[in-house]
Amino acid sequence: MNFGIYIYNNAEVLDFSGPFEVLSTANRLGHNNWNIFLVSENKGLIQARGGYPIHSHFSFEDHPDIDVLIVVGGIHTEELKKAHVISWVAKVAEHASKVASVCTGAFILAEAGLLNGLTVTTHWEDISDLKIDYPKLNVVSNQRWVSQGKYITSGGISAGIDMTLHLVSDLANLTLAKETAKQMEYDWQRIT
Amino acid sequence: MNFGIYIYNNAEVLDFSGPFEVLSTANRLGHNNWNIFLVSENKGLIQARGGYPIHSHFSFEDHPDIDVLIVVGGIHTEELKKAHVISWVAKVAEHASKVASVCTGAFILAEAGLLNGLTVTTHWEDISDLKIDYPKLNVVSNQRWVSQGKYITSGGISAGIDMTLHLVSDLANLTLAKETAKQMEYDWQRIT
Repeated sequence: MNFGIYIYNNAEVLDFSGPFEVLSTANRLGHNNWNIFLVSENKGLIQARGGYPIHSHFSFEDHPDIDVLIVVGGIHTEELKKAHVISWVAKVAEHASKVASVCTGAFILAEAGLLNGLTVTTHWEDISDLKIDYPKLNVVSNQRWVSQGKYITSGGISAGIDMTLHLVSDLANLTLAKETAKQMEYDWQRIT
Repeated sequence: MNFGIYIYNNAEVLDFSGPFEVLSTANRLGHNNWNIFLVSENKGLIQARGGYPIHSHFSFEDHPDIDVLIVVGGIHTEELKKAHVISWVAKVAEHASKVASVCTGAFILAEAGLLNGLTVTTHWEDISDLKIDYPKLNVVSNQRWVSQGKYITSGGISAGIDMTLHLVSDLANLTLAKETAKQMEYDWQRIT
């Protein structure tokens, strides 16, 4: 199974490093043969938020098929203006079995028209903007993540860790998700 | 104030990305004029654990003075064998005002002779090894982090986030640490 995490300049660091840590730890503990990679629009160095120098594994041109797409937040506004990015997200989402957002990554999924009619969430600071900008969404607050079949949206920054543990539970099993949280010494905030 | 985070091949991703996220968010919210950077032994691309492609900002040869040194864990055993790394850590620690470890980064500080006589902690899986390998340390479990004046050691992986929030509280103030946790939607596990 191939996990593609979409990153870009000024993406929030923990939005992508948290899910990467969860998935790679789960992969190691569970011997899942998962392939976890970062994807950016173009090749080369990405400057994530705060000047964090990260490389993607693949660009839009050369990435493997993506079964699980994770779109992260941060300073996402430039991404919304890029027709090439939005059409790539829409195309990959169409063929993926799961599509998730962390933090303001929900705006990118919304811009791609993927969240219409769904119950979703985002960073607490951006709840009202998401409602105003995309009135076809049912935006909720005070949930770490919201799962709606194929689509999962999570709250701000560290909530992406909880959401990704849920993905592990869903795609592998609950025992592995709990073992992963224990390995990370992370107090998983499950929805129960 | 200059924060240097030491990274290396097979360093655990969240061990360094978590503290970077905390410090850069605190810096943005608090207008602290903090300089937060990653340091590696040599220039070039680092493959953190799980094949995570990260660049350091500086090498041992060209980094600015470090006021706060954070040494991270992961597969740390190769680092212990590198005399150049251990002597660099010892030298930087001598001039730093705070020295912290995340997870098995405690072994690197211990190898540099910095933790003798102190109460310290590490990842839960490595508590007994740390006791055996460095009998001059008082190793404890079931604490997210242990502060001993200049030296702070934290538990595994995500505990580095809690420890770094404590650093923010200590070096700036408690209000900023709480605001940073709120911005990250992180449930800070404080020692109270």
